[in-house]
Amino acid sequence: MSTGAKISTRRVYNGRVINVDIDQVRFPNGKEGELEMVRHPGASAVVPFLSDPAGENPQVLLIRQYRYATERVIYEIPAGKLDGDEPPEACARRELREETGCDCEELEHLTTIYTTPGFTDERIHLFMATGLTRIGEAELEHDEFVESEPVSLSDALHMIANGKIVDGKTVCALLFVAGFRAGF
Amino acid sequence: MSTGAKISTRRVYNGRVINVDIDQVRFPNGKEGELEMVRHPGASAVVPFLSDPAGENPQVLLIRQYRYATERVIYEIPAGKLDGDEPPEACARRELREETGCDCEELEHLTTIYTTPGFTDERIHLFMATGLTRIGEAELEHDEFVESEPVSLSDALHMIANGKIVDGKTVCALLFVAGFRAGF
Repeated sequence: MSTGAKISTRRVYNGRVINVDIDQVRFPNGKEGELEMVRHPGASAVVPFLSDPAGENPQVLLIRQYRYATERVIYEIPAGKLDGDEPPEACARRELREETGCDCEELEHLTTIYTTPGFTDERIHLFMATGLTRIGEAELEHDEFVESEPVSLSDALHMIANGKIVDGKTVCALLFVAGFRAGF
Repeated sequence: MSTGAKISTRRVYNGRVINVDIDQVRFPNGKEGELEMVRHPGASAVVPFLSDPAGENPQVLLIRQYRYATERVIYEIPAGKLDGDEPPEACARRELREETGCDCEELEHLTTIYTTPGFTDERIHLFMATGLTRIGEAELEHDEFVESEPVSLSDALHMIANGKIVDGKTVCALLFVAGFRAGF
């Protein structure tokens, strides 16, 4: 299957986090049409391991975050937007520090996902972090409401199975590390 | 942690698939601020099993779809937007039919994810489908470019591990069904 191409673009919303473009597009069949596209700078997210990830039922550090979009506090892994041309790994380390007050010895890239490619180019780079050390308090922005909570990996997987963890990047990253352990 | 509340809302973009609102919000700490929010009707997605999901290395039906946001053809599971007040299960069955030409005997709800709750209220209801029968050809919209491809579940998991499958809902749903099989 061939791909399409952009013919022209028109910015219809210029926001704080996102922009919205309407692009005139040539589709793979040669026809033309319009597509609306939410432009996002991309983000990193990280599964912080509090104990040996290869050990029996390791602990991970989740956050409980108030999300206006969900109208409630939900469980997530630490995450945040790339700052300008910040490398994804630096972003993961920075967000871990800001949201949990912890630094890490090692970061390993798991995968990079498109969160919802039907309408946005947002990609989230997923990492796991090991060798955590508390270096201070969380440093949150004025509109961030976050508390850390240590959870065993098996409890976290149950929380995915019973619908208590519903954040897409968090489901992906936790199942990814669990799948690796299970030899997928 | 308490939650926040909407004080007022202003629609700044009225689109074909999405709308964008700027909401005046009272945050959990009592302070006020503005948040931009992409409003989306929600969607369903389905892992179609071509053989017994409890059997050895079952086959699933993936689709290869051209996505303008990713600038290439990517692997996904069949999915699409809720049509008005359509129930999520009916949407999953309809999208399976439209994108693959297959009907199914049974649909089982896996979980429902928020794709990226930092800036959108979009939720995707994830299902698995069994008892597939081909009932016709795929019926695609003018801007949908989709081909079906049977893949074994173990191959699909390798494609997640090596970054060949990068769509968030697809990673979630495939790892979810694999996790169930592995006894997570």
